[in-house]
Amino acid sequence: MSDTRTSAGVDNFATSKKMFTWNQPGERMITIMTAGNLATTQAMISLLEERSKTTQDRDPSILREATMFQVARLVGATLKEVIGETTNEGQLKQAQFSASVIVGGQIKGGKPTVFLVYPQGNFIEITDDTPFFQIGETKYGKPILVRAYDPEMSFEEALKLLIISFDSTVKSNLSVGLPFDLQVYNSFEIGSTRRIEESDTIYQAISSGWGDALKDAFQKLPAYKL
Amino acid sequence: MSDTRTSAGVDNFATSKKMFTWNQPGERMITIMTAGNLATTQAMISLLEERSKTTQDRDPSILREATMFQVARLVGATLKEVIGETTNEGQLKQAQFSASVIVGGQIKGGKPTVFLVYPQGNFIEITDDTPFFQIGETKYGKPILVRAYDPEMSFEEALKLLIISFDSTVKSNLSVGLPFDLQVYNSFEIGSTRRIEESDTIYQAISSGWGDALKDAFQKLPAYKL
Repeated sequence: MSDTRTSAGVDNFATSKKMFTWNQPGERMITIMTAGNLATTQAMISLLEERSKTTQDRDPSILREATMFQVARLVGATLKEVIGETTNEGQLKQAQFSASVIVGGQIKGGKPTVFLVYPQGNFIEITDDTPFFQIGETKYGKPILVRAYDPEMSFEEALKLLIISFDSTVKSNLSVGLPFDLQVYNSFEIGSTRRIEESDTIYQAISSGWGDALKDAFQKLPAYKL
Repeated sequence: MSDTRTSAGVDNFATSKKMFTWNQPGERMITIMTAGNLATTQAMISLLEERSKTTQDRDPSILREATMFQVARLVGATLKEVIGETTNEGQLKQAQFSASVIVGGQIKGGKPTVFLVYPQGNFIEITDDTPFFQIGETKYGKPILVRAYDPEMSFEEALKLLIISFDSTVKSNLSVGLPFDLQVYNSFEIGSTRRIEESDTIYQAISSGWGDALKDAFQKLPAYKL
């Protein structure tokens, strides 16, 4: 799941999709989500899609790599290259043009997996001990993931947890906002995809229900007497 | 309330009180809490206590200022001075030596109030619209404050909320840790003070109770069906 808020200050914000998918049904499906400087992440995606070539000459490497590990290396190298070009030429602060990426997917012959790619171009892979990745404004939504995530939880519950984590962030920080883009992976194809708008009734039920549930839970705890 | 974890990297952390009080019973009580670089905040507190003078010559201005607004100005000027000295002489990044401060208290003739002082030396005051301040690792603990804080809540409830907010942060970030220092202000005197240790049974009940309550609340919410 990704949000769609992009901002260069509170007086300049817009909606932009941060989720990009390459799919060859039955053979591979790769999805990238981005956080950080929009010029950097857009340039990275354009390079991955080989937009510097004419349409008929394009043959994106991301559709040729043999393994997800190789895909993560390609994404890391491309991200590092874009950040390096911007910061070397302009002698500007690297942090300003930084970005992070989550790459998930599966290529025939391999298992489905997820990588978190750093602006330095290196990356880590998901494991049983590190069962989820966050990028961007990660802190507000982390406590509920830490406390409620359970590897045994159902798919619907995981979805609900995602929405609560994103919603906690939206309530606390103006740089994250609806709509959210949700994509489900299913055996080398897009299982399901949805744009969750502010007006989505189930989202509203979860968001307001969570506020009420927190207050109830809060009331039930013992008081701290001095 | 303040935590006590100080760290210069994960291999170098210690416990250090971040709450400092000046009290003349019946006339004034001022409490400062600090976040950020420990050398900066310790130097600031030492200057406020006039440790550069011999014990008998000390006459700290913080005990002479006529209003809390003047106290906030003094603290801001002192904080800015310390950061300036470190960064100008060494030509090092200001961010590394930065710090923030919360100053709360009351001086006879004025109302009780709280200020948040920035490293630049300026500050903001608490209002009905901005009813609480956080400094340091503020993001993890903010969502529960945003959702559960209510100006009508009882003192015991506010205390419980503080503990949950701090506990959410502790569970997500190694740079914040127990024990917590808690101080209650009561009419120009320290109303109550306590160091909340990991072994504190009410803290444990709130912390584990909150984890369970969150999971219960989570289960009761509607599922997001695709």
